[in-house]
Amino acid sequence: VPIERTTTDQRLLRGARTRGQILTRAVDIASAEGLGSVSLGRLAHDLGLSKSGVNGHFASRQALQLAVVSFAARLYADRVLAPAMTQPQGLPRLWAFCHRWLEFMRSGELSGRSFFLTAVVEYDARPGAVRDTLVRYRRRWETVFTQNWHKAESLGHVQADVDPQLLFMEIAGFITVATLDAQLCGNLEPFNLAREGIRHRLRPLLLEPNTLA
Amino acid sequence: VPIERTTTDQRLLRGARTRGQILTRAVDIASAEGLGSVSLGRLAHDLGLSKSGVNGHFASRQALQLAVVSFAARLYADRVLAPAMTQPQGLPRLWAFCHRWLEFMRSGELSGRSFFLTAVVEYDARPGAVRDTLVRYRRRWETVFTQNWHKAESLGHVQADVDPQLLFMEIAGFITVATLDAQLCGNLEPFNLAREGIRHRLRPLLLEPNTLA
Repeated sequence: VPIERTTTDQRLLRGARTRGQILTRAVDIASAEGLGSVSLGRLAHDLGLSKSGVNGHFASRQALQLAVVSFAARLYADRVLAPAMTQPQGLPRLWAFCHRWLEFMRSGELSGRSFFLTAVVEYDARPGAVRDTLVRYRRRWETVFTQNWHKAESLGHVQADVDPQLLFMEIAGFITVATLDAQLCGNLEPFNLAREGIRHRLRPLLLEPNTLA
Repeated sequence: VPIERTTTDQRLLRGARTRGQILTRAVDIASAEGLGSVSLGRLAHDLGLSKSGVNGHFASRQALQLAVVSFAARLYADRVLAPAMTQPQGLPRLWAFCHRWLEFMRSGELSGRSFFLTAVVEYDARPGAVRDTLVRYRRRWETVFTQNWHKAESLGHVQADVDPQLLFMEIAGFITVATLDAQLCGNLEPFNLAREGIRHRLRPLLLEPNTLA
């Protein structure tokens, strides 16, 4: 029995690893070319797997697309939220969130693109489960920011008369335009400009100046 | 001879009108679905023209795509720059530029999308004439803003220690995020938030407050 269980565990582990490989590749393709370019056939080809081997992991094309969106969201959480959570609550965590988000876009990990920007432009006019999921993640991302802002406010780190939704739009705007400009013009300078812009925007809102890392 | 000339004139006029119809439809398709979805066959079908009738206006698929980008740029100029130019130089013209740009996006004329946002996401990683043209228009649009900012500065309307390139990125960010959010979430509220954000951002930079229309 222990041997059998081990074999099953290994099979599950191998399956999970393959699923992770498939989704990693799919997020790359979707970031560069759009979710519409993600197909089971292309994934099988790119990863040297059999088509039925890829097929077995997803019940349908839509199931694959939804899995890709969730996997991308987990990637953003790993790269942006997880390191931000290691910072003290309030302003340090808030600044880490902005900083890590910008650096993740600058890193070029997703072919220098924003997965969510590409997906939103592609799906915002197509009602359905993919679009609903994108709306949910869009709201959740904003909520992370506004909750951290309120925390920073209650800790006396920042001014109390600020609309955090408006501030989130502004920061998202800097990072979005920087990501678009960097890719279009083929250099990373826009990220420096955006970083300066965000710091410049946050500085007058801090109750203790010079606390931005 | 006069009769012949009139016939030629009418033929030219009819040709120009057809070309305008084709490009208007093409800009709509490209804004909603991307330039990749614009084809001579689809345009002929949508406009009830013969395929050869559409074909005759463009030497190649790329010639069609470049004509679509130029036509879109002229549309932005008509809707945004032309009304801004009727305003006095300096701050009134600068504010009209921001305001008209935002209102053009809100109007829903391009299926509620930004032609240039869709095109940039589609073409920013594909070197070639289309991308080069998009880069050129991206720079030109920023130059309109920065030149007007310098004019407003020299007229004593705004503070002198502002980086207009950074300010342009911020305003472009508000309008871009509003356009994306409005389409994704299916309501126009993000445009109100962006308008408030831009006014809020510009107000402290004015030397005579309360001059924003």
